[in-house]
Amino acid sequence: MFRATISSLLHLVLDEEYVLIAFGYEDAALDVRFTYRVDLMHLSTKSTQQQSKNQSQTKAVAVAAAYQKAVGWAALDSSGILSPFHFTRRANGDNDITMKILYCGICHSDLHMTTNTFGFSSYPMIPGGLKGIEVASEEVRGGKGGERAGVGDGEAAGDEELPEEELVGVGSKEEGHEIVGVVTKVGCKVNKFKVGDKAGVGGFIGSCGTCTSCQNNLENYCTKVTHTATIFGGAEEEKNYGGFSDIMVVDEHFAIRFPNSLSLEGGAPLLGGGITVYSPMKYFGLNEAGKHLGVVGLGGLGHLAVKFAKAFGMKVTVISTSPNKKEEAIGRLGADSFLVSSDTMQMQAAMNTMDGILDTVSAAHPFNPLIRLLKCNGKLILLGAGVADIEKPIDLAVLLTAGRKLIAGSNSGGMKETQEMIDFAGKHNIVADVEVIPIDYINTAMKRLAKGDIRYRFVIDIGNTLTA
Amino acid sequence: MFRATISSLLHLVLDEEYVLIAFGYEDAALDVRFTYRVDLMHLSTKSTQQQSKNQSQTKAVAVAAAYQKAVGWAALDSSGILSPFHFTRRANGDNDITMKILYCGICHSDLHMTTNTFGFSSYPMIPGGLKGIEVASEEVRGGKGGERAGVGDGEAAGDEELPEEELVGVGSKEEGHEIVGVVTKVGCKVNKFKVGDKAGVGGFIGSCGTCTSCQNNLENYCTKVTHTATIFGGAEEEKNYGGFSDIMVVDEHFAIRFPNSLSLEGGAPLLGGGITVYSPMKYFGLNEAGKHLGVVGLGGLGHLAVKFAKAFGMKVTVISTSPNKKEEAIGRLGADSFLVSSDTMQMQAAMNTMDGILDTVSAAHPFNPLIRLLKCNGKLILLGAGVADIEKPIDLAVLLTAGRKLIAGSNSGGMKETQEMIDFAGKHNIVADVEVIPIDYINTAMKRLAKGDIRYRFVIDIGNTLTA
Repeated sequence: MFRATISSLLHLVLDEEYVLIAFGYEDAALDVRFTYRVDLMHLSTKSTQQQSKNQSQTKAVAVAAAYQKAVGWAALDSSGILSPFHFTRRANGDNDITMKILYCGICHSDLHMTTNTFGFSSYPMIPGGLKGIEVASEEVRGGKGGERAGVGDGEAAGDEELPEEELVGVGSKEEGHEIVGVVTKVGCKVNKFKVGDKAGVGGFIGSCGTCTSCQNNLENYCTKVTHTATIFGGAEEEKNYGGFSDIMVVDEHFAIRFPNSLSLEGGAPLLGGGITVYSPMKYFGLNEAGKHLGVVGLGGLGHLAVKFAKAFGMKVTVISTSPNKKEEAIGRLGADSFLVSSDTMQMQAAMNTMDGILDTVSAAHPFNPLIRLLKCNGKLILLGAGVADIEKPIDLAVLLTAGRKLIAGSNSGGMKETQEMIDFAGKHNIVADVEVIPIDYINTAMKRLAKGDIRYRFVIDIGNTLTA
Repeated sequence: MFRATISSLLHLVLDEEYVLIAFGYEDAALDVRFTYRVDLMHLSTKSTQQQSKNQSQTKAVAVAAAYQKAVGWAALDSSGILSPFHFTRRANGDNDITMKILYCGICHSDLHMTTNTFGFSSYPMIPGGLKGIEVASEEVRGGKGGERAGVGDGEAAGDEELPEEELVGVGSKEEGHEIVGVVTKVGCKVNKFKVGDKAGVGGFIGSCGTCTSCQNNLENYCTKVTHTATIFGGAEEEKNYGGFSDIMVVDEHFAIRFPNSLSLEGGAPLLGGGITVYSPMKYFGLNEAGKHLGVVGLGGLGHLAVKFAKAFGMKVTVISTSPNKKEEAIGRLGADSFLVSSDTMQMQAAMNTMDGILDTVSAAHPFNPLIRLLKCNGKLILLGAGVADIEKPIDLAVLLTAGRKLIAGSNSGGMKETQEMIDFAGKHNIVADVEVIPIDYINTAMKRLAKGDIRYRFVIDIGNTLTA
C-alpha cells in the first residue's frame, strides 16, 4: 500500500535536524501509530508549522515525518558482503526510546541469512532494525546520561563514508540480534526508561498486539511479528535495518531493561542466544534442579545453555562431534559430562538417561540417536535453524511412542520472558563468553564463525568503532 | 535363568485340579511372587503335603506350582493363522484375581504383530496373556457371581479341539488387548475385587514396580513391563498368552474395576483404544473445553478420540483420506468438521487452527501437512504404530521451530489413568461402536480389519462362543 503512495511524498527540509514529509489524507490507512503522531508534534514546534497547516487545509489533512539519520553496515546481496550503509530511522514516537547502540552480538543464524540459506533473505540487510519508512536521515543525538565509560554522547552518524573492504555479510533469523546500548531519547508516554538507562533489543521490535500469542506474552510467535532486521523481502520503504548500526528506535515494549550488574558486551548475546535457550528450558520444564539436560553443540547457544542449566542446578551433558571440546565443556563451563556423538559405545551407555536435550546444531544431523538418549517423557528441543536429518522415519515414530517422548521446536522468547531471563542472568552473573571486535572486523569474524572458530560469541563494539 | 532350571522340575500330579512342580532352592532367584507363595499354601492343604515337606528337608526348601488349564486361539507363525491352543495359566495368587473372559476387542496393532511388521513377534501368540510358567492345565472354574445374563459359570476349558479354518492371526503391541470378564477367584490379599465383579485387563499385566515410570503410575512405560501377550521372543516357559482365551489370571493391580453402567462389549475396546487416546489428551492438555482437536484417521482409535473429545467439550475436526467418512464423522459421531487430507485447498484453509492432533494412522503418511494445521504451541501426537513419512526433513525443523510446535508419541496409559478413563466413560456413557463376533469369525474379522472394513471395532464374544 505504501509503495503506491510513496511517489506522492513531499519532502520538505525543515532544518538540519528534521526532514518533513507531508502527504494527503488518502494515505491515512498507513500504519501511522509511530510516525505521524510524532510528526505532528514536531510540526507544532517547527518553523514550517504554517506551511504544513496550509497543506492540511488544501488536502484536508497534512502530516509529516521526521527521521533520524543512521549508519550501519549492510549486506547488499547473497554474496553477503557487508559495507557501510546510510539510512534513517523513524523519529522517536511517544512510546519509543532511541538508543545509542554500544554492542551487538553476531548470531550463527546470520550465516543462514546473508548466504540466503532459506531463500527469503532481503537485501540490503543490516542485522537488527526497525519496521518503518526510512527515507532521509537525522544526525544522532547521543545519550545524555550514558553510565558507562566509553558510551558518551554518540556523535556517530553522518554522511562520511566508511572504508570498504571485502566482507562476509550477516543477516538475521527470528532469534535475531543482540543489541545493547544506552537510552538517548524517550517519548512522552515511555514508562520503563529514562535517558541514560541501559537497554537491550533482541530479534523483533513489533507485533500485532492482538493475537493469542501476543496476548500470552509470546510476541515472538506472532505471525505478524516485526523482525528487528527485515528478513523477508518487501518494499524498500518497509525495511528494517538492524543492530550493526549506530542508533536504534524502538517502542519501549520491545526493549528490555538491562541489569546494571551485567557486563554489556557479555550480556548482549543473551538477547538472542540467551533467550533462545532459556525460553524452551522454562516452557518444557527443563529448568528443574536435579534434572539431566543434554546440550547438543557447544557454540553460541550451547555454551549459554550449559551456563543457564547449571544455574538452575541441573546435571548437564554436552554432546558434540568434537572430542577436543570435552575439557572446555567440563573444565571451564562446568558441564558434568561429555559425549562424543560419533562414539556409539558412549551413546549406547547414555541411553535413557536424559530428561531433555537442547539441540543447537544447524547442520544436518540425525535425530534418532538423540531421542534414544532421552528417558521416558523426554524432550528433544530443536533450536538450530538448519537441516534435520531423520535417517529412518519408522524409528522416529516408534522411538517417540515407546517412551512418550517428543520433538519440539522453539524460537526465541517473548518480551516478558526476555526481561525475566536477563534479570535471572544478572542475578547469577551469566554472560556469554565473547570476543569483542571492531566493526571493520565483522567480515573476518563471519568467516571464522562459519568455521566454528569462535568461543563462543563475537560481539561488535559498535560504540567505540562504528563511525560515520 | 528359568530356562536353565526347567529341566530340574519335578512334576507331581496332586489331584485332578492341581499339578505340583517341586524343585530345589537353587531356583529361588526366579520371580516367585505369584506362583510359589500360592503353591505353598496349596501344599499345606493337599495330600502331598508330607511328600513336599520331605523334599524340603532334603533340598533345604521345596516349592510347588499349581496351574489352571486354559484354552485360546493362537497364531503359530508369521502367517498369522490362528488356531485353538491349549495352555495353562498360573494358580491364583494372594494378590491375583482369576477372570472368566467374556469379551475381547481386536486392536489394529494386532495386524502388525501377527504379520510380524516389526520383526520381533514371538509365536505361538495368543493376544492378551500372562507372564509366568505355563506347563500344565487346570479346568476353569467359572465365575460364581456373574452379574450379566450369559456370563454364567464358564465351563469353557477342556481338551476338546475347536474347529479349524483358515485364519489371519492377531498379535499385540503395547496398547494391547481389551479384555473384560467376571471375577471368578480372588486371592487372600485382593482388595479391589470380589467374586462376581466385572473386571477389565488391558495391554500389560506386570511391571517392575520400582522404576520412575512405575512410581509415577506410568507402568505402561516401564521398560520391564510385562505385556498381556508376549510380543518379544523369549523362553517358551516365560510366555504370556492373551485374551482370545477363556480365563485370565492377573495381579489385581493390573485389572480395572469395570463400571456397572457400561456395556461390556462396547466398553472392552476402551481398555486398549480408549486409554490410548485418553492418556495423551490428558498429558498434553488436549482435553480442555473449547480447544480444537484434529483426529487423523477414523478407525478404532479415531472414533473413540472423537467421542472423548466431545465429552470434554472440545471442537473436533476429523482428518481422513476418505471423503465418504464425512457424514459418519459429523452426522453420527458428532465431529464439528471434516477435512479430506488430500484436498490441498481444505488443508490450506485449516492451517494454524488446531491446538492438537491425535494421529491414529498406522500407514505411512507425511507429518508436515499436519504440523501446518497446528496453531502456535500445537501438538501432533502419534498413536499409530506404523511408518511415518517425513517428506522434507528441513521443513519439519522449520515448521516446529516457527511455532513452538511438537511431535510426540504416546502409548497406552498407566493403571491409575486407565481406571480414571473407564470411570469417565461410564459417567459419559462412552463406548466403542462394535461389531460383536464369535471366536470362529476372528480370521475373517482380521481380513476385514486389514481392509478397514469395520466401524469401528471387532469384539469377540468369548463367553458365549469359545468352548474347549
